[in-house]
Amino acid sequence: MNPKKLAAEKAVEFIEDGMVVGLGTGSTAYWAIQKIAQRIQEGLRIRAVASSRDSEELAIKLGIPIVPFSEIEFIDITIDGADEVDTHLNLIKGGGGALVREKILAINSKRFFVIIDESKRVEHLGQFSLPVEIVPFAVNLTINKLKELGCDTRIRMRNDKEYITDNGNIIVDCNFEKIVEPIELNKQINLIPGVVDNGLFTRMVSSLIVGYNDGNVMIIDQP
Amino acid sequence: MNPKKLAAEKAVEFIEDGMVVGLGTGSTAYWAIQKIAQRIQEGLRIRAVASSRDSEELAIKLGIPIVPFSEIEFIDITIDGADEVDTHLNLIKGGGGALVREKILAINSKRFFVIIDESKRVEHLGQFSLPVEIVPFAVNLTINKLKELGCDTRIRMRNDKEYITDNGNIIVDCNFEKIVEPIELNKQINLIPGVVDNGLFTRMVSSLIVGYNDGNVMIIDQP
Repeated sequence: MNPKKLAAEKAVEFIEDGMVVGLGTGSTAYWAIQKIAQRIQEGLRIRAVASSRDSEELAIKLGIPIVPFSEIEFIDITIDGADEVDTHLNLIKGGGGALVREKILAINSKRFFVIIDESKRVEHLGQFSLPVEIVPFAVNLTINKLKELGCDTRIRMRNDKEYITDNGNIIVDCNFEKIVEPIELNKQINLIPGVVDNGLFTRMVSSLIVGYNDGNVMIIDQP
Repeated sequence: MNPKKLAAEKAVEFIEDGMVVGLGTGSTAYWAIQKIAQRIQEGLRIRAVASSRDSEELAIKLGIPIVPFSEIEFIDITIDGADEVDTHLNLIKGGGGALVREKILAINSKRFFVIIDESKRVEHLGQFSLPVEIVPFAVNLTINKLKELGCDTRIRMRNDKEYITDNGNIIVDCNFEKIVEPIELNKQINLIPGVVDNGLFTRMVSSLIVGYNDGNVMIIDQP
Protein backbone atom coordinates (compact mmCIF):
# COMPACT_ATOMS: atom_id res chain seq x y z
CA MET A 1 0.00 0.00 0.00
CA ASN A 2 1.10 3.59 -0.68
CA PRO A 3 3.05 4.72 2.42
CA LYS A 4 1.98 8.36 1.96
CA LYS A 5 -1.65 7.26 1.95
CA LEU A 6 -1.08 5.10 5.03
CA ALA A 7 0.39 7.99 7.01
CA ALA A 8 -2.30 10.40 5.81
CA GLU A 9 -5.18 8.14 6.75
CA LYS A 10 -3.72 7.49 10.21
CA ALA A 11 -3.55 11.26 10.84
CA VAL A 12 -7.15 11.78 9.77
CA GLU A 13 -8.25 9.40 12.55
CA PHE A 14 -7.41 12.16 15.05
CA ILE A 15 -10.02 14.52 13.62
CA GLU A 16 -13.21 14.81 15.69
CA ASP A 17 -16.62 16.38 15.23
CA GLY A 18 -16.64 20.17 15.57
CA MET A 19 -12.95 20.69 14.88
CA VAL A 20 -11.37 23.35 12.71
CA VAL A 21 -8.95 21.49 10.42
CA GLY A 22 -6.03 22.89 8.46
CA LEU A 23 -5.42 21.27 5.08
CA GLY A 24 -1.85 20.99 3.87
CA THR A 25 -0.49 21.04 0.34
CA GLY A 26 1.31 18.43 -1.74
CA SER A 27 1.24 14.76 -2.67
CA THR A 28 0.88 13.41 0.90
CA ALA A 29 -1.62 16.04 2.08
CA TYR A 30 -3.63 15.08 -1.00
CA TRP A 31 -4.39 11.70 0.60
CA ALA A 32 -5.42 13.34 3.86
CA ILE A 33 -7.86 15.59 2.01
CA GLN A 34 -9.32 12.56 0.22
CA LYS A 35 -9.79 10.72 3.52
CA ILE A 36 -11.32 13.75 5.25
CA ALA A 37 -13.83 14.03 2.38
CA GLN A 38 -14.73 10.37 2.85
CA ARG A 39 -15.27 10.84 6.59
CA ILE A 40 -17.48 13.88 5.91
CA GLN A 41 -19.62 11.76 3.60
CA GLU A 42 -19.89 9.31 6.50
CA GLY A 43 -21.16 12.07 8.80
CA LEU A 44 -18.12 13.93 10.23
CA ARG A 45 -18.84 17.62 10.82
CA ILE A 46 -15.86 19.99 10.65
CA ARG A 47 -14.81 23.34 9.24
CA ALA A 48 -11.60 23.56 7.23
CA VAL A 49 -9.05 26.13 6.06
CA ALA A 50 -6.49 25.48 3.32
CA SER A 51 -2.82 26.35 2.92
CA SER A 52 -2.98 26.85 -0.83
CA ARG A 53 -5.40 27.60 -3.62
CA ASP A 54 -4.78 24.10 -5.00
CA SER A 55 -5.81 22.41 -1.75
CA GLU A 56 -8.76 24.75 -1.34
CA GLU A 57 -10.04 23.90 -4.82
CA LEU A 58 -9.58 20.18 -4.23
CA ALA A 59 -11.39 20.37 -0.89
CA ILE A 60 -14.34 22.28 -2.31
CA LYS A 61 -14.62 19.82 -5.17
CA LEU A 62 -14.77 16.96 -2.66
CA GLY A 63 -17.40 18.66 -0.49
CA ILE A 64 -15.21 19.73 2.45
CA PRO A 65 -16.62 22.93 4.00
CA ILE A 66 -13.96 25.63 3.66
CA VAL A 67 -14.44 28.72 5.84
CA PRO A 68 -12.71 32.10 5.63
CA PHE A 69 -9.90 32.69 8.13
CA SER A 70 -11.83 35.66 9.50
CA GLU A 71 -14.33 33.15 10.96
CA ILE A 72 -11.81 31.26 13.07
CA GLU A 73 -9.54 32.12 16.00
CA PHE A 74 -7.33 29.03 15.86
CA ILE A 75 -7.04 25.64 14.18
CA ASP A 76 -7.48 22.39 16.11
CA ILE A 77 -5.44 20.11 13.86
CA THR A 78 -3.39 20.78 10.76
CA ILE A 79 -2.22 17.79 8.70
CA ASP A 80 0.55 18.44 6.21
CA GLY A 81 3.50 16.75 4.52
CA ALA A 82 7.19 17.64 4.60
CA ASP A 83 10.17 17.35 2.29
CA GLU A 84 12.64 16.41 5.04
CA VAL A 85 12.31 15.64 8.75
CA ASP A 86 15.32 15.42 11.07
CA THR A 87 15.69 13.45 14.30
CA HIS A 88 14.49 16.46 16.38
CA LEU A 89 11.34 16.76 14.22
CA ASN A 90 12.55 19.90 12.50
CA LEU A 91 11.30 20.11 8.92
CA ILE A 92 12.05 21.46 5.51
CA LYS A 93 8.83 22.26 3.70
CA GLY A 94 7.93 24.27 0.65
CA GLY A 95 8.82 21.98 -2.24
CA GLY A 96 5.29 22.74 -3.39
CA GLY A 97 5.82 26.49 -3.04
CA ALA A 98 3.21 27.11 -0.31
CA LEU A 99 5.58 27.45 2.64
CA VAL A 100 4.37 30.79 4.02
CA ARG A 101 0.74 29.78 4.18
CA GLU A 102 1.63 26.33 5.49
CA LYS A 103 3.70 27.94 8.26
CA ILE A 104 0.85 30.29 9.19
CA LEU A 105 -1.45 27.29 9.55
CA ALA A 106 1.10 25.29 11.54
CA ILE A 107 1.87 28.05 14.07
CA ASN A 108 -1.83 28.69 14.66
CA SER A 109 -2.70 25.02 15.20
CA LYS A 110 -3.13 23.37 18.58
CA ARG A 111 -1.81 20.18 17.03
CA PHE A 112 0.35 19.99 13.90
CA PHE A 113 0.57 16.49 12.39
CA VAL A 114 3.25 15.87 9.82
CA ILE A 115 2.74 12.94 7.49
CA ILE A 116 5.54 11.42 5.43
CA ASP A 117 6.78 8.24 3.86
CA GLU A 118 9.97 6.81 5.35
CA SER A 119 12.19 8.29 2.60
CA LYS A 120 11.79 11.80 4.08
CA ARG A 121 13.57 11.01 7.37
CA VAL A 122 17.14 12.34 7.56
CA GLU A 123 19.78 12.81 10.22
CA HIS A 124 20.46 16.42 9.20
CA LEU A 125 18.30 18.67 7.05
CA GLY A 126 19.74 20.24 3.92
CA GLN A 127 20.02 17.57 1.26
CA PHE A 128 16.73 18.96 0.02
CA SER A 129 17.16 22.59 -1.04
CA LEU A 130 15.61 25.03 1.42
CA PRO A 131 12.94 27.21 -0.24
CA VAL A 132 12.97 30.88 0.75
CA GLU A 133 10.13 33.18 -0.28
CA ILE A 134 11.31 36.73 -1.08
CA VAL A 135 9.59 39.87 -2.33
CA PRO A 136 10.16 40.52 -6.05
CA PHE A 137 12.13 43.72 -5.43
CA ALA A 138 15.92 44.05 -5.61
CA VAL A 139 16.01 40.25 -5.86
CA ASN A 140 19.74 40.05 -6.59
CA LEU A 141 20.58 41.97 -3.39
CA THR A 142 18.44 39.67 -1.24
CA ILE A 143 20.03 36.65 -2.91
CA ASN A 144 23.49 38.03 -2.10
CA LYS A 145 22.52 38.13 1.58
CA LEU A 146 21.30 34.52 1.41
CA LYS A 147 24.59 33.43 -0.15
CA GLU A 148 26.47 35.06 2.73
CA LEU A 149 24.87 32.37 4.94
CA GLY A 150 26.76 29.72 3.01
CA CYS A 151 24.43 28.31 0.35
CA ASP A 152 24.14 28.06 -3.41
CA THR A 153 20.96 29.64 -4.71
CA ARG A 154 18.63 29.10 -7.61
CA ILE A 155 15.48 31.07 -8.43
CA ARG A 156 12.64 28.59 -8.88
CA MET A 157 11.27 28.59 -12.43
CA ARG A 158 8.11 27.24 -14.02
CA ASN A 159 7.62 27.18 -17.79
CA ASP A 160 10.72 29.36 -18.33
CA LYS A 161 9.39 32.07 -16.04
CA GLU A 162 9.98 32.84 -12.37
CA TYR A 163 7.60 30.76 -10.26
CA ILE A 164 5.16 33.10 -8.49
CA THR A 165 3.71 32.09 -5.10
CA ASP A 166 0.09 32.51 -4.01
CA ASN A 167 1.35 35.65 -2.22
CA GLY A 168 2.81 37.15 -5.40
CA ASN A 169 6.43 36.53 -4.39
CA ILE A 170 9.28 34.42 -5.77
CA ILE A 171 11.03 31.36 -4.37
CA VAL A 172 14.81 31.00 -4.04
CA ASP A 173 15.90 27.39 -3.50
CA CYS A 174 18.97 27.45 -1.24
CA ASN A 175 21.30 24.46 -1.19
CA PHE A 176 23.08 24.28 2.19
CA GLU A 177 23.97 20.56 1.82
CA LYS A 178 23.89 20.13 5.61
CA ILE A 179 21.97 22.26 8.10
CA VAL A 180 23.38 21.69 11.58
CA GLU A 181 21.54 24.44 13.48
CA PRO A 182 18.11 24.84 11.90
CA ILE A 183 16.70 27.05 14.68
CA GLU A 184 19.53 29.57 14.32
CA LEU A 185 19.45 29.45 10.51
CA ASN A 186 15.70 30.06 10.49
CA LYS A 187 16.28 33.27 12.49
CA GLN A 188 19.16 34.46 10.34
CA ILE A 189 17.21 33.99 7.13
CA ASN A 190 14.06 35.67 8.41
CA LEU A 191 16.05 38.71 9.55
CA ILE A 192 17.21 39.42 5.99
CA PRO A 193 15.15 42.33 4.63
CA GLY A 194 13.25 41.12 1.58
CA VAL A 195 12.71 37.60 2.96
CA VAL A 196 9.07 36.77 3.70
CA ASP A 197 9.77 33.37 5.25
CA ASN A 198 11.62 30.12 4.65
CA GLY A 199 10.86 26.41 4.65
CA LEU A 200 12.46 25.58 8.01
CA PHE A 201 9.76 24.56 10.49
CA THR A 202 11.45 24.28 13.86
CA ARG A 203 9.83 23.24 17.15
CA MET A 204 6.39 23.14 15.56
CA VAL A 205 5.48 19.47 15.08
CA SER A 206 3.14 17.81 17.58
CA SER A 207 3.34 14.36 16.00
CA LEU A 208 5.15 12.84 13.06
CA ILE A 209 3.38 9.99 11.29
CA VAL A 210 5.56 7.84 9.06
CA GLY A 211 4.21 5.39 6.51
CA TYR A 212 6.45 2.45 5.52
CA ASN A 213 6.55 0.48 2.30
CA ASP A 214 5.82 -2.71 4.25
CA GLY A 215 2.47 -1.31 5.37
CA ASN A 216 3.48 -0.24 8.86
CA VAL A 217 2.74 3.19 10.31
CA MET A 218 4.69 4.79 13.15
CA ILE A 219 3.64 7.79 15.27
CA ILE A 220 6.41 9.82 16.90
CA ASP A 221 5.30 12.52 19.35
CA GLN A 222 7.34 15.63 20.01
CA PRO A 223 9.12 14.93 23.29
CA MET B 1 14.70 77.47 7.54
CA ASN B 2 12.97 74.08 7.29
CA PRO B 3 14.92 71.70 9.56
CA LYS B 4 14.09 68.68 7.38
CA LYS B 5 15.52 70.48 4.37
CA LEU B 6 18.62 71.46 6.36
CA ALA B 7 19.33 67.87 7.37
CA ALA B 8 18.62 66.57 3.87
CA GLU B 9 20.95 69.04 2.17
CA LYS B 10 23.75 68.29 4.61
CA ALA B 11 23.48 64.56 3.82
CA VAL B 12 23.59 65.16 0.08
CA GLU B 13 27.02 66.81 0.52
CA PHE B 14 28.44 63.31 1.14
CA ILE B 15 27.52 62.10 -2.34
CA GLU B 16 30.41 61.92 -4.80
CA ASP B 17 30.81 61.33 -8.52
CA GLY B 18 30.33 57.72 -9.57
CA MET B 19 28.35 56.62 -6.53
CA VAL B 20 25.25 54.45 -6.44
CA VAL B 21 22.74 56.33 -4.30
CA GLY B 22 19.65 54.98 -2.55
CA LEU B 23 16.69 57.35 -2.42
CA GLY B 24 14.43 57.19 0.61
CA THR B 25 10.72 57.90 0.90
CA GLY B 26 8.76 60.55 2.77
CA SER B 27 8.73 64.26 3.54
CA THR B 28 12.41 64.53 4.57
CA ALA B 29 13.77 62.28 1.82
CA TYR B 30 11.83 64.52 -0.56
CA TRP B 31 14.26 67.36 0.17
CA ALA B 32 17.25 65.09 -0.38
CA ILE B 33 15.90 64.06 -3.78
CA GLN B 34 15.40 67.73 -4.70
CA LYS B 35 18.97 68.58 -3.71
CA ILE B 36 20.42 65.56 -5.55
CA ALA B 37 18.59 66.70 -8.69
CA GLN B 38 20.11 70.16 -8.30
CA ARG B 39 23.62 68.73 -7.93
CA ILE B 40 23.08 66.60 -11.04
CA GLN B 41 22.14 69.73 -12.99
CA GLU B 42 25.42 71.20 -11.75
CA GLY B 43 27.35 68.21 -13.09
CA LEU B 44 27.25 65.41 -10.49
CA ARG B 45 27.23 61.96 -12.09
CA ILE B 46 25.58 59.18 -10.12
CA ARG B 47 23.23 56.23 -10.53
CA ALA B 48 20.25 55.93 -8.20
CA VAL B 49 17.78 53.32 -6.93
CA ALA B 50 14.56 54.18 -5.14
CA SER B 51 12.75 52.70 -2.13
CA SER B 52 9.26 53.38 -3.44
CA ARG B 53 7.35 54.04 -6.62
CA ASP B 54 6.62 57.56 -5.37
CA SER B 55 10.32 58.40 -4.95
CA GLU B 56 11.19 56.75 -8.24
CA GLU B 57 8.61 58.84 -10.09
CA LEU B 58 9.78 62.04 -8.40
CA ALA B 59 13.42 61.25 -9.22
CA ILE B 60 12.70 60.52 -12.87
CA LYS B 61 10.68 63.74 -13.16
CA LEU B 62 13.66 65.69 -11.77
CA GLY B 63 16.18 64.03 -14.11
CA ILE B 64 17.90 61.68 -11.63
CA PRO B 65 19.11 58.56 -13.46
CA ILE B 66 17.33 55.56 -11.93
CA VAL B 67 18.84 52.16 -12.72
CA PRO B 68 17.34 48.70 -12.19
CA PHE B 69 18.56 46.79 -9.13
CA SER B 70 19.84 44.06 -11.41
CA GLU B 71 22.56 46.50 -12.56
CA ILE B 72 24.04 47.08 -9.12
CA GLU B 73 25.79 44.92 -6.52
CA PHE B 74 25.57 47.36 -3.61
CA ILE B 75 24.65 50.95 -2.78
CA ASP B 76 27.26 53.50 -1.70
CA ILE B 77 25.00 55.84 0.25
CA THR B 78 21.31 55.68 1.10
CA ILE B 79 19.67 58.80 2.51
CA ASP B 80 16.32 58.35 4.19
CA GLY B 81 14.14 59.79 6.94
CA ALA B 82 12.78 58.12 10.09
CA ASP B 83 9.72 58.43 12.28
CA GLU B 84 11.61 57.97 15.56
CA VAL B 85 15.29 57.66 16.48
CA ASP B 86 16.46 56.52 19.92
CA THR B 87 19.71 57.32 21.71
CA HIS B 88 21.39 54.18 20.27
CA LEU B 89 20.39 55.22 16.72
CA ASN B 90 17.74 52.53 16.43
CA LEU B 91 14.83 53.66 14.27
CA ILE B 92 11.16 53.25 13.64
CA LYS B 93 10.42 53.74 9.96
CA GLY B 94 7.48 53.00 7.73
CA GLY B 95 5.04 55.79 8.44
CA GLY B 96 5.02 56.20 4.67
CA GLY B 97 4.34 52.48 4.13
CA ALA B 98 7.59 51.65 2.29
CA LEU B 99 9.43 49.95 5.15
CA VAL B 100 10.39 46.69 3.42
CA ARG B 101 11.97 48.37 0.43
CA GLU B 102 13.63 50.99 2.64
CA LYS B 103 15.12 48.22 4.79
CA ILE B 104 16.43 46.37 1.72
CA LEU B 105 18.17 49.56 0.60
CA ALA B 106 19.56 50.28 4.07
CA ILE B 107 21.03 46.79 4.62
CA ASN B 108 22.68 46.83 1.21
CA SER B 109 24.26 50.28 1.65
CA LYS B 110 27.85 50.91 2.65
CA ARG B 111 26.66 54.04 4.39
CA PHE B 112 23.11 54.69 5.60
CA PHE B 113 22.39 58.33 6.44
CA VAL B 114 19.25 59.08 8.39
CA ILE B 115 17.91 62.62 8.18
CA ILE B 116 15.41 64.03 10.65
CA ASP B 117 14.23 67.17 12.32
CA GLU B 118 14.83 67.39 16.04
CA SER B 119 11.26 66.33 16.93
CA LYS B 120 12.00 62.73 15.91
CA ARG B 121 14.58 62.08 18.63
CA VAL B 122 13.29 60.04 21.56
CA GLU B 123 14.73 58.25 24.55
CA HIS B 124 12.80 55.04 23.84
CA LEU B 125 11.07 54.04 20.61
CA GLY B 126 7.39 53.21 20.62
CA GLN B 127 5.42 56.42 20.96
CA PHE B 128 5.09 56.22 17.20
CA SER B 129 3.19 53.05 16.24
CA LEU B 130 5.44 50.38 14.75
CA PRO B 131 4.35 49.44 11.21
CA VAL B 132 4.46 45.72 10.41
CA GLU B 133 3.98 44.51 6.83
CA ILE B 134 2.09 41.19 6.65
CA VAL B 135 0.85 39.01 3.79
CA PRO B 136 -2.88 39.41 3.14
CA PHE B 137 -3.68 35.81 4.15
CA ALA B 138 -5.19 34.75 7.48
CA VAL B 139 -4.64 38.32 8.63
CA ASN B 140 -6.51 37.94 11.91
CA LEU B 141 -4.28 35.01 12.95
CA THR B 142 -1.10 36.97 12.25
CA ILE B 143 -2.50 39.94 14.17
CA ASN B 144 -3.22 37.66 17.15
CA LYS B 145 0.45 36.68 17.19
CA LEU B 146 1.49 40.35 17.12
CA LYS B 147 -0.82 41.11 20.04
CA GLU B 148 0.83 38.34 22.05
CA LEU B 149 3.98 40.52 21.97
CA GLY B 150 2.14 43.16 23.97
CA CYS B 151 0.78 45.75 21.55
CA ASP B 152 -2.51 47.18 20.37
CA THR B 153 -2.96 46.77 16.63
CA ARG B 154 -4.73 48.64 13.88
CA ILE B 155 -4.84 47.74 10.19
CA ARG B 156 -3.75 50.79 8.19
CA MET B 157 -6.53 52.15 6.00
CA ARG B 158 -6.64 54.55 3.08
CA ASN B 159 -9.92 55.84 1.65
CA ASP B 160 -11.93 53.32 3.69
CA LYS B 161 -9.95 50.39 2.28
CA GLU B 162 -6.97 48.46 3.57
CA TYR B 163 -3.79 50.27 2.57
CA ILE B 164 -1.83 48.09 0.11
CA THR B 165 1.98 48.34 -0.01
CA ASP B 166 4.10 48.41 -3.17
CA ASN B 167 4.64 44.68 -2.47
CA GLY B 168 0.90 43.93 -2.43
CA ASN B 169 0.75 43.42 1.35
CA ILE B 170 -1.02 45.17 4.21
CA ILE B 171 0.32 47.22 7.12
CA VAL B 172 -0.58 46.64 10.76
CA ASP B 173 0.33 49.60 12.99
CA CYS B 174 1.35 48.22 16.38
CA ASN B 175 1.27 50.46 19.42
CA PHE B 176 3.78 49.24 22.00
CA GLU B 177 3.95 52.60 23.84
CA LYS B 178 7.55 51.91 24.91
CA ILE B 179 10.03 49.60 23.18
CA VAL B 180 12.87 48.80 25.57
CA GLU B 181 14.64 46.08 23.57
CA PRO B 182 14.26 46.90 19.88
CA ILE B 183 16.81 44.33 18.68
CA GLU B 184 14.98 41.49 20.41
CA LEU B 185 11.54 42.75 19.37
CA ASN B 186 12.65 42.99 15.74
CA LYS B 187 13.60 39.30 15.85
CA GLN B 188 10.41 38.20 17.57
CA ILE B 189 8.21 40.02 15.06
CA ASN B 190 10.09 38.75 12.01
CA LEU B 191 9.81 35.15 13.24
CA ILE B 192 6.01 35.31 13.14
CA PRO B 193 4.82 33.45 10.02
CA GLY B 194 2.93 35.90 7.82
CA VAL B 195 5.13 38.87 8.75
CA VAL B 196 7.21 40.20 5.86
CA ASP B 197 9.14 42.76 7.92
CA ASN B 198 8.67 45.56 10.42
CA GLY B 199 9.71 49.18 10.84
CA LEU B 200 12.43 48.60 13.45
CA PHE B 201 15.83 49.40 11.94
CA THR B 202 18.42 48.29 14.48
CA ARG B 203 22.20 48.64 14.17
CA MET B 204 21.92 49.95 10.63
CA VAL B 205 22.57 53.71 10.77
CA SER B 206 26.01 55.03 9.78
CA SER B 207 25.23 58.66 10.58
CA LEU B 208 22.25 60.53 11.90
CA ILE B 209 21.83 64.09 10.66
CA VAL B 210 19.50 66.28 12.70
CA GLY B 211 18.12 69.62 11.53
CA TYR B 212 17.08 72.15 14.18
CA ASN B 213 14.52 74.91 13.99
CA ASP B 214 17.22 77.47 14.80
CA GLY B 215 19.09 76.57 11.60
CA ASN B 216 21.73 74.30 13.14
CA VAL B 217 22.59 70.84 11.83
CA MET B 218 24.20 68.10 13.90
CA ILE B 219 25.86 64.92 12.62
CA ILE B 220 25.98 61.94 14.98
CA ASP B 221 28.04 58.97 13.81
CA GLN B 222 27.28 55.42 14.93
CA PRO B 223 29.86 54.72 17.63
